[in-house]
Amino acid sequence: MTKKPIVPMPVIRRLPRYHRYLEELLKNDVKRISSRELSEKMGVTASQIRQDLNNYGGFGQQGYGYNVEELYNTLTRILGLDKTYSTIIIGAGNLGQAIANYTNFERTGFNLKGIFDINPRLFGLKIRDIEIMDVELLEDFLSKNKIDIAILCIPKDNSQIMADRLVKAGIKAIWNFSPIDLDVPDDVILENVHLSDSLLTLSYRLNEDKLLKNKVEEK
Amino acid sequence: MTKKPIVPMPVIRRLPRYHRYLEELLKNDVKRISSRELSEKMGVTASQIRQDLNNYGGFGQQGYGYNVEELYNTLTRILGLDKTYSTIIIGAGNLGQAIANYTNFERTGFNLKGIFDINPRLFGLKIRDIEIMDVELLEDFLSKNKIDIAILCIPKDNSQIMADRLVKAGIKAIWNFSPIDLDVPDDVILENVHLSDSLLTLSYRLNEDKLLKNKVEEK
Repeated sequence: MTKKPIVPMPVIRRLPRYHRYLEELLKNDVKRISSRELSEKMGVTASQIRQDLNNYGGFGQQGYGYNVEELYNTLTRILGLDKTYSTIIIGAGNLGQAIANYTNFERTGFNLKGIFDINPRLFGLKIRDIEIMDVELLEDFLSKNKIDIAILCIPKDNSQIMADRLVKAGIKAIWNFSPIDLDVPDDVILENVHLSDSLLTLSYRLNEDKLLKNKVEEK
Repeated sequence: MTKKPIVPMPVIRRLPRYHRYLEELLKNDVKRISSRELSEKMGVTASQIRQDLNNYGGFGQQGYGYNVEELYNTLTRILGLDKTYSTIIIGAGNLGQAIANYTNFERTGFNLKGIFDINPRLFGLKIRDIEIMDVELLEDFLSKNKIDIAILCIPKDNSQIMADRLVKAGIKAIWNFSPIDLDVPDDVILENVHLSDSLLTLSYRLNEDKLLKNKVEEK
């Protein structure tokens, strides 16, 4: 079932964007921003922003706007970016390697502790000083290391079995790149990046005009 | 502003999932499925599925359910997967390479025609027989080749400039992996994969219980 969020998901999904915009403003030395300005930049209404933030206590004042640094720091805390996280990657194929090499995550506090694969030819190879290990060692590794997030980058046929193993070994958060909807218990957080779903959305939209025109004509 | 979809985005985003599930059913030789069964599998209500599909004409019948193959084929057509698409990748870093190597897209009809990068050391190298080219040759390449989708895998600092170049050269669809909200004209379709936003959603959710508990206690 995966864990249910308390605040609605669409709200939660806007938070990283707010954070990105505020980081940009901070870089450009902007001290204050009105909710109207912020909303124009972000393409959401000012009341939407206020409502979203109200889930976490009130910020800013009417007619004064937001203190950029304060709001940025608050969002950093809300997003849990004032902490660090230990991660492992399961699957050292192209995508797993790409994510392992993406040092931006490291800078934000997500520290890669292990990479696992099924392919013996990869064992012992290193990505950014982290050795690729035999996935058979996974449970042993997890019993000795506190890991917060498992990043799943394996073909879909094995991903449910792997998710089950991870959950059994105590993992509470899975970042899933396999093109499948995993089944995990209620206390496990599942976040999916379905690349092919995203690409199919694009091909759909390339055809939508014609598709719906045809439908109207068929009537 | 990017192009506005006719059907609401949340509906569109469910279509690839329906397609995935039906593909699975088809593989398992399931011929018919009731809307109730399908909805249980997918974790959405039966009326939601009916409503979603009604945007594209009616399917299935009360008490009979859906013909799996028929509905699968219809969704294939709705998603534009009965056509093929030419794509290019801008940015041959880890992520660009991972996507270039992901042959599943090719199988669904997305054909990679070119890879571009700014780094001279990569020029001439090949990924799956496709040469990495100097991004300075982009406009020339686009004037000679009909490309449907540009896949943007470059650092955020250059991505708006690159998006502008792509749009000017006639690209009508951008699949953006840069962690930035690009500004494109109304007739250009923009689909984002914001990996870090997704990861931040995960770190948020790892802390939500405590975060909202603190908020209540502060009151």
